[in-house]
Amino acid sequence: MRYRATLAYDGSAYFGFQRQAGQSTVQAAVEDALQRFAGRRVALLSAGRTDTGVHATGQVIAFDLDWSHTPGALCKALNANLPQDIAVRDVRQAAPGFHPRYDARARTYVYRLYVSPVRDPLRRLRAWHLRLAPDLTAMREAASCLVGTHDFSAFGTPPQGGNPVRTVVEARWHEAPGQECHFTITANAFLYRMVRTLVGTLVEVGQGRMTPEVFRGILAACERGRAAPPAPAHGLTLVAVDYEET
Amino acid sequence: MRYRATLAYDGSAYFGFQRQAGQSTVQAAVEDALQRFAGRRVALLSAGRTDTGVHATGQVIAFDLDWSHTPGALCKALNANLPQDIAVRDVRQAAPGFHPRYDARARTYVYRLYVSPVRDPLRRLRAWHLRLAPDLTAMREAASCLVGTHDFSAFGTPPQGGNPVRTVVEARWHEAPGQECHFTITANAFLYRMVRTLVGTLVEVGQGRMTPEVFRGILAACERGRAAPPAPAHGLTLVAVDYEET
Repeated sequence: MRYRATLAYDGSAYFGFQRQAGQSTVQAAVEDALQRFAGRRVALLSAGRTDTGVHATGQVIAFDLDWSHTPGALCKALNANLPQDIAVRDVRQAAPGFHPRYDARARTYVYRLYVSPVRDPLRRLRAWHLRLAPDLTAMREAASCLVGTHDFSAFGTPPQGGNPVRTVVEARWHEAPGQECHFTITANAFLYRMVRTLVGTLVEVGQGRMTPEVFRGILAACERGRAAPPAPAHGLTLVAVDYEET
Repeated sequence: MRYRATLAYDGSAYFGFQRQAGQSTVQAAVEDALQRFAGRRVALLSAGRTDTGVHATGQVIAFDLDWSHTPGALCKALNANLPQDIAVRDVRQAAPGFHPRYDARARTYVYRLYVSPVRDPLRRLRAWHLRLAPDLTAMREAASCLVGTHDFSAFGTPPQGGNPVRTVVEARWHEAPGQECHFTITANAFLYRMVRTLVGTLVEVGQGRMTPEVFRGILAACERGRAAPPAPAHGLTLVAVDYEET
């Protein structure tokens, strides 16, 4: 039976999501937990890799397992076997061919900025600390060009030289409690490092080092070299992956 | 010159605030940072100890230092020398006799509950995870008896058999974003483990295992044995210490 599960994790201690030889990764930790039930290696499918330090509240995984109890009992059993920085939020049965990556219609990420003259130790692994308040109006003006179907080569790399065109359905800055600004972006899929590179470049706009017009020009020109370096990984969280209702 | 500073820290990695031989503590970390300027050991005074795992956004410390630049420059220099899980929020000059503990008029703590069927890896070091929603009305009814001047022996231990009477000026439960309930309590001072023991016992009320009447009876009876065990340290944050305006 194929199962689908929603995963939350604190990415701070992991070398990203994807299994890599000799590294502690989220995938390896979940596969280890599954192995304790199955008595054999269970390979995970996932909606997407996340980089080192990137968090998730809505990563989606799938795996095949013989399990004679309810999905709810599987969820509890998995959580009892996972480290405290990874949790399964829910488990349900899926169609045999369900693939969390290929079947996904959209992914949503949130990037968190913490704006204060002094860093906050309690948010050091959760938000990018900016000393000076960015100009939200300018960042919103720049981000407004992102919605739609574009070649995003300027802001990321497609897998193995593939198609760099993606469709962004939402890209929005909003103020959040505790002196935070959050950037929420939803697209059918993302290029490698795309969200962090967008945020890094939008913060350049917010801090007056780039105009919204220049930002739009970078998108249009498809030149990677003109975007800013990626924003730090620890501000980024994969919050949701959406599928056709089944 | 005596300086007063406000300190924020993530208590997760420390064996509490107070210096202890052979242990990593917040006090030792700040004294180590100060030593790098002063070229000698600088002893910290603080508004109060916090236990292992307890956090702070508003701890107040004081120390004597020869410093020829501004307090703002001292704040920056300290932060550059502190580990990432400790930050100085501000530094100002203080009267020579200023003592952050004896001069304090009130301390405020916030205790955070996270209410969800499944634990959240991103809040595991910041909030006590409850699977079942507590009855806020019952917890508020119970907590209402705390305001005023009482013998709090039932909920904590005074230092070295001293006076167990404290004056609580606010004790309030409120719902917070992200499925959280926060308990904010302000008093002139607190007994050892008092906030955590109050929260542990109030959650018993919230989960229907104790009535508000029984809670009030425990306060009145001054018997430590009838209160619940302390709530976990990681849900607690020292948020403010108040002084007479100077």
